[in-house]
Amino acid sequence: MDMLWNGWGDPAKAAPLPDSVTGLLRDMLGVKPRTTPSLALDDIGLPADTAEPAALKALAEAVGGEAYVRTDAESRIRHTRGKSTPDLLRIRAGDFADLPRAVVLPGSHDEVLAVLRACSAHALAVVPFGGGTSVVGGLAPERSAFVALDLRRMSGLLELDPVSRTAVLQPGLRAPEAEALLAEHGFTLGHFPQSFEWATIGGFAAARSSGQASAGYGRFDEMVLGLTLATPEGTIETGRAPRSAAGPDLRQLILGSEGAFGVITSVTVRIRPVPEVRVYEGWRFASFEEGAAALRRLAQDGPRPTVLRLSDEVETLIGLAQPDAIGAGLTQGDAGCMAITGYEGTAEDTALRREQAAAVLTACGGTLVGTEPGERWAHGRYSAPYLRDSLLEVGAFAETLETAAYWSRIPELYAAVRTALTDTLTQAGTPPLVMCHISHVYENGASLYFTVVSAQGEDPVAHWEPAKHAANEALLAAGGTISHHHGVGTDHRDWYVREAGPLGISALRAVKRRLDPEGLLNPGVLLPTD
Amino acid sequence: MDMLWNGWGDPAKAAPLPDSVTGLLRDMLGVKPRTTPSLALDDIGLPADTAEPAALKALAEAVGGEAYVRTDAESRIRHTRGKSTPDLLRIRAGDFADLPRAVVLPGSHDEVLAVLRACSAHALAVVPFGGGTSVVGGLAPERSAFVALDLRRMSGLLELDPVSRTAVLQPGLRAPEAEALLAEHGFTLGHFPQSFEWATIGGFAAARSSGQASAGYGRFDEMVLGLTLATPEGTIETGRAPRSAAGPDLRQLILGSEGAFGVITSVTVRIRPVPEVRVYEGWRFASFEEGAAALRRLAQDGPRPTVLRLSDEVETLIGLAQPDAIGAGLTQGDAGCMAITGYEGTAEDTALRREQAAAVLTACGGTLVGTEPGERWAHGRYSAPYLRDSLLEVGAFAETLETAAYWSRIPELYAAVRTALTDTLTQAGTPPLVMCHISHVYENGASLYFTVVSAQGEDPVAHWEPAKHAANEALLAAGGTISHHHGVGTDHRDWYVREAGPLGISALRAVKRRLDPEGLLNPGVLLPTD
Repeated sequence: MDMLWNGWGDPAKAAPLPDSVTGLLRDMLGVKPRTTPSLALDDIGLPADTAEPAALKALAEAVGGEAYVRTDAESRIRHTRGKSTPDLLRIRAGDFADLPRAVVLPGSHDEVLAVLRACSAHALAVVPFGGGTSVVGGLAPERSAFVALDLRRMSGLLELDPVSRTAVLQPGLRAPEAEALLAEHGFTLGHFPQSFEWATIGGFAAARSSGQASAGYGRFDEMVLGLTLATPEGTIETGRAPRSAAGPDLRQLILGSEGAFGVITSVTVRIRPVPEVRVYEGWRFASFEEGAAALRRLAQDGPRPTVLRLSDEVETLIGLAQPDAIGAGLTQGDAGCMAITGYEGTAEDTALRREQAAAVLTACGGTLVGTEPGERWAHGRYSAPYLRDSLLEVGAFAETLETAAYWSRIPELYAAVRTALTDTLTQAGTPPLVMCHISHVYENGASLYFTVVSAQGEDPVAHWEPAKHAANEALLAAGGTISHHHGVGTDHRDWYVREAGPLGISALRAVKRRLDPEGLLNPGVLLPTD
Repeated sequence: MDMLWNGWGDPAKAAPLPDSVTGLLRDMLGVKPRTTPSLALDDIGLPADTAEPAALKALAEAVGGEAYVRTDAESRIRHTRGKSTPDLLRIRAGDFADLPRAVVLPGSHDEVLAVLRACSAHALAVVPFGGGTSVVGGLAPERSAFVALDLRRMSGLLELDPVSRTAVLQPGLRAPEAEALLAEHGFTLGHFPQSFEWATIGGFAAARSSGQASAGYGRFDEMVLGLTLATPEGTIETGRAPRSAAGPDLRQLILGSEGAFGVITSVTVRIRPVPEVRVYEGWRFASFEEGAAALRRLAQDGPRPTVLRLSDEVETLIGLAQPDAIGAGLTQGDAGCMAITGYEGTAEDTALRREQAAAVLTACGGTLVGTEPGERWAHGRYSAPYLRDSLLEVGAFAETLETAAYWSRIPELYAAVRTALTDTLTQAGTPPLVMCHISHVYENGASLYFTVVSAQGEDPVAHWEPAKHAANEALLAAGGTISHHHGVGTDHRDWYVREAGPLGISALRAVKRRLDPEGLLNPGVLLPTD
């Protein structure tokens, strides 16, 4: 199934907001109903600027037939940009400036290499396309003549080694398909980001994804043991051994390269037995600070839950409240902060960890609320993007951003980003609701995930830009990284360049020039063009 | 204290072999007493080819005085090559072909940058020198005009963040000094390789070291959160956050770069509380295969001991036997295989993990031998290099090599390397004793560490070369990596190039050209020179 072209996910799962919420948005945030009607896919007239016939012919030869080279309007629209809120707002407003000239569907590593040769011959840039879920401009290159390289035909489980607990997956596999294929052998990958239902294995690797169960299963970059990369200059294969002292780790040069160094054509991952038991529960803390200290203690001294997250006061209220109660709850403000702890594994192991963790959380001031908040979280864990669509539909603006830092910097980082977002949007006349949670924990630090809801303002895209800019400045100043798991794309690139420093960026550009001397691959994504 | 110039460690700790062992070596392996007398440090006449006066002046200016630029014979000899057996044999034979032209001791990051500028101006290559413990030719560049950059003056603990559990260490800190500084604050790094007593923080990072407690504390590359690199083109600083999705992980490009990309001038590491309890014990298995399956089960399903290793049958016999009993034991052959399990942490945590692991090991066929073998292992964990010196002294040859692979490849890898070593040395007329242990375990694989003892043959250096060559070929063919924790250096470079592949190597050379355009840094180490 294809994702909704101008929003998120399966159109059948759309969840319109109750009128009561619409009313609250109006009263609290000044949200006004949208007046422009929504564009219908069939009504869109596109420029006829597809790739030249000779290029299309070469591409068709590269991928084994014309059926795998698409230039129809719908295919091109469905491969335009990603799923950030500005992406959705622009496409809903009929802005098709970032349309690909064609969509190409290779079926193998060798076909990817052949596509790269054809694109070189015809001066077309190449944007690798998995689930299309980038929220950082990772699919909007700084070059108008490009093709989208849709990897959906490369969606197999190539090998599974139950002794070593490894599997070789193709890049176009969506996460649920990968889980289903692994489950046939009794294994799981354990990677469950919010984009789970749509995102692909190749995308996870290219963008250093991190899932909601990262406390237990690790980040995606920690799951990767080997990668195959197709570049205009040939192939790189990595991962002869799980760990090695043979030079710099080339896997970690490909992970996070966001299609700018090559196309990831296979990923060898660590797999684990399907858990016997999955249990999620809620714990309440008096404050974000108290809750964060409890999470830190578990992350540093164990036992480590599989899922570990903590909402701040505002997010807790919004999360707890039934729609009708939001207004009352927000003014009441005594809900504290809700943490979700989850345990997955054998019955024995989960029971022991749960008991040990409960002792630690209690000692840190937490109160067990029971499994209901955990089950509610698990039930809705992939639904936030649907909620965003509904908010956009009624004239509200909703977007997220995230960062990470060392534990000692977390309080400052939290305050700095909140303040930057609140001040900027308030000054623009659209005071926001800013919510935050600790989404991933490590021994040495954690990530903060912010959600912002406000009125859209006159120009919804322009309205967000200064707030996002201010948040990026604030988080760099407070010691955060520009992205903990969304990636760099084009949206974060200028801040990423500052974070990595001129010589670090220059070293990466040297790698890019060696692998992609003509600059065909995702130009302007991750690294500035020359 | 300086390390023994032509052997290992503290001369006061030398442990001559009992006559009974010398007799066994003679009878079993055909070891003949050495006839050439040992060279004395004072008797060595060196070529007077130090760096030019203008270069020495520039270097002295770079490091704040002539006292920190040394050209005396002893200093130069002490910075010649590393501590592989061929290194020791060559220096004992008076082969000083790899002498540095001077030894330079910078005191800060800025002084390192200044040294690099001075070396550029005077066409001198630079070999970063920490503990001098490389066993892979990492200190023997392919250029005769070079200086050794001894980092011993940069040996401080710069910062310690007890909340985030991080510390910033200078590269010249030896591991025991680092542990002592951290212990003052109640923390440990937990990195205990066999070279622990002499090796440095910078060297661990540059060579991707792995310690004997890696099952619990992780490899050194997993402990590193940030690095500062001084290069001829400027500085790279990495590690704003413990984990990030902001591009490829530059830390993992510097780790394992072996001085070829720059000089590591600070390392931010993860630290942990000093354990309350340390307990090590021995488990006996009927066979290496049975023991390996037990280790794999702990590595994959837990609980994870802090130390986990398994000797094969031959190493078990040698390890168990008192000198007088070796001969009898080897023919007897019923000792099975000894595993060492160690637990470090709080009293409660170690007791629980030990109990749970005991249940798993028993279920896998293991028999608890008690703490005596564990204590004996812990007592002798850093002494093998002393034993090697004694073996070399009586005319025996002793060397080690190591590799890693996925679990399913381990049996084939083990057999292939053993056979290659045994066949090559037997054909050369010096049939060896080949011992092996699993030295490090991961969910998806393990490392194998081989020790070889034989007679020295006519030319001890030449005698080893074909065996090492055959082992390298065998391990690559059987799916192993050319090094799990010793590194690449010059000795493994040609196999490393095959392992990483031409395009991977080419990408790394592009990085090197950007950071070190004149090729001053460790030329020929890690990467081939142009």
